[in-house]
Amino acid sequence: MTSPDPAPGRVTLVGGGPGDPDLLTLAGLRALQSADIILTDHLAPDVSTLVNGTEVVNVGKTPHGPATPQEEINALLIEHARAGRHVVRLKGGDPFVFGRGGEEFIACADAGVAVAVVPGVTSAVAAPELAGIPVTHRGVSQGFTVVSGHVAPDDPHCHIDWAALAQSGTTLVLLMGVRHLPAIAAALAEGGLPADTPAAVVTKAASPAMQVVRGTLATIADLAVSNSVRPPSVTVIGDVAGLDLR
Amino acid sequence: MTSPDPAPGRVTLVGGGPGDPDLLTLAGLRALQSADIILTDHLAPDVSTLVNGTEVVNVGKTPHGPATPQEEINALLIEHARAGRHVVRLKGGDPFVFGRGGEEFIACADAGVAVAVVPGVTSAVAAPELAGIPVTHRGVSQGFTVVSGHVAPDDPHCHIDWAALAQSGTTLVLLMGVRHLPAIAAALAEGGLPADTPAAVVTKAASPAMQVVRGTLATIADLAVSNSVRPPSVTVIGDVAGLDLR
Ligand SMILES: C[S@@+](CC[C@H](N)C(=O)[O-])C[C@H]1O[C@@H](n2cnc3c(N)ncnc32)[C@H](O)[C@@H]1O
Ligand SMILES: C[S@@+](CC[C@H](N)C(=O)[O-])C[C@H]1O[C@@H](n2cnc3c(N)ncnc32)[C@H](O)[C@@H]1O
Repeated sequence: MTSPDPAPGRVTLVGGGPGDPDLLTLAGLRALQSADIILTDHLAPDVSTLVNGTEVVNVGKTPHGPATPQEEINALLIEHARAGRHVVRLKGGDPFVFGRGGEEFIACADAGVAVAVVPGVTSAVAAPELAGIPVTHRGVSQGFTVVSGHVAPDDPHCHIDWAALAQSGTTLVLLMGVRHLPAIAAALAEGGLPADTPAAVVTKAASPAMQVVRGTLATIADLAVSNSVRPPSVTVIGDVAGLDLR
Repeated sequence: MTSPDPAPGRVTLVGGGPGDPDLLTLAGLRALQSADIILTDHLAPDVSTLVNGTEVVNVGKTPHGPATPQEEINALLIEHARAGRHVVRLKGGDPFVFGRGGEEFIACADAGVAVAVVPGVTSAVAAPELAGIPVTHRGVSQGFTVVSGHVAPDDPHCHIDWAALAQSGTTLVLLMGVRHLPAIAAALAEGGLPADTPAAVVTKAASPAMQVVRGTLATIADLAVSNSVRPPSVTVIGDVAGLDLR
């Protein structure tokens, strides 16, 4: 008798939430606990105590070393799955919010590898929330816009119309925006957003090191510098940033 | 000897995710399991099997009955907490995304009742995701805007500038937008969003009854009608709605 075919491998993209393992979902935890190998990111929660000796490989950018190139991550996911493993790709926040999760999904699917996604708590909503700022609030904001700030407003690769966002009437939530905050704040002011619009920067939310800097559209970029704000940070600009629900 | 004061009551606002109890967070589950009473909503997950006989009161709108007025919900939270109970207020998605969670937080705080919030997986991100649509995608979308569609564009209470959103370059994610979808699609087209922009409506995400209708800005409102789309539904408008990562 020949032994049965090994179970085919597969990949699960898991949203790990903003950093506190308690903000993992039950489905995410279950995927992690059934994984044969976990490929994790710099900003994903530390899950070492939740899984029992499963190999955890950090493929994310670290302060002291470069990130594994995306193509190499994609290749790793496929390689491990083809070897029959259940690979969990653990991402910070939600996999489809600036997480390159979509690219990883497509790479797996194109390679014929079964792939599924488990949504997570995104830092775009949770970081402001944990700092006491609701991204929407009755009578104050009927919507919010989450944008990547890692491309400067004057860069030809920038597809965001900052002047339109200034007019949109929505709360603005900026991810990856520490470096370009001065240019982005200037673009919003130029687009007509009032200088006294409340603004706040929330750093390392969902950790004991959380830091909140509050100001206005006019002052927030300077305050971020004088308070030595570093990534990971979420910036909220809009009247809701004047609330403090803590 | 007199008996010690009873433990003071408190309120925890818990984000329940888009409907599947597996998308609750670990922190949310822990809060539910330590609750003395749970006030839940129509769209929150059914947690009856996760808590052991704890009283669960549905204060949300149901298809056959009216919702408890917000003031009454606030009063209930305060009353139960003042009686020394740990009250969990379970909301669909995230408590601060159109959930009136901010109002409940403020009502408790103003009444001197201790209140905390546990972020959740918002349907704004998860409903598209579970339908195979990433709200951001490298080379396709550098941001997304989540707006409430429950106020018509021509209503004086509408603070959203739909023409600006049409220009913003972000993916648009519409919550509570089934009824006003024709007017909203028209406002976006008038604002310059191309008629052939991909669009999709995702109904009852995170449940076996999930339904996905795909079309374009020009066709989506009619398709929603001809497919008998009902709330709860999330509408995604933007190039990412042409992706199908499933
Ligand atoms: C590559 S993006 C990934 C976002 C992630 N997929 C999500 O949904 O939260 C990384 C950015 O997320 C934000 N971020 C993630 N975790 C954070 C945290 N704990 N506190 C503040 N910002 C955070 C920062 O803006 C950071 O630069
Ligand atoms: C009052 S809002 C609350 C949103 C919630 N706080 C959140 O973060 O998801 C209710 C709207 O959320 C959307 N929604 C909630 N759950 C959904 C689901 N499972 N599928 C599709 N849409 C959903 C619908 O647009 C619905 O009209």
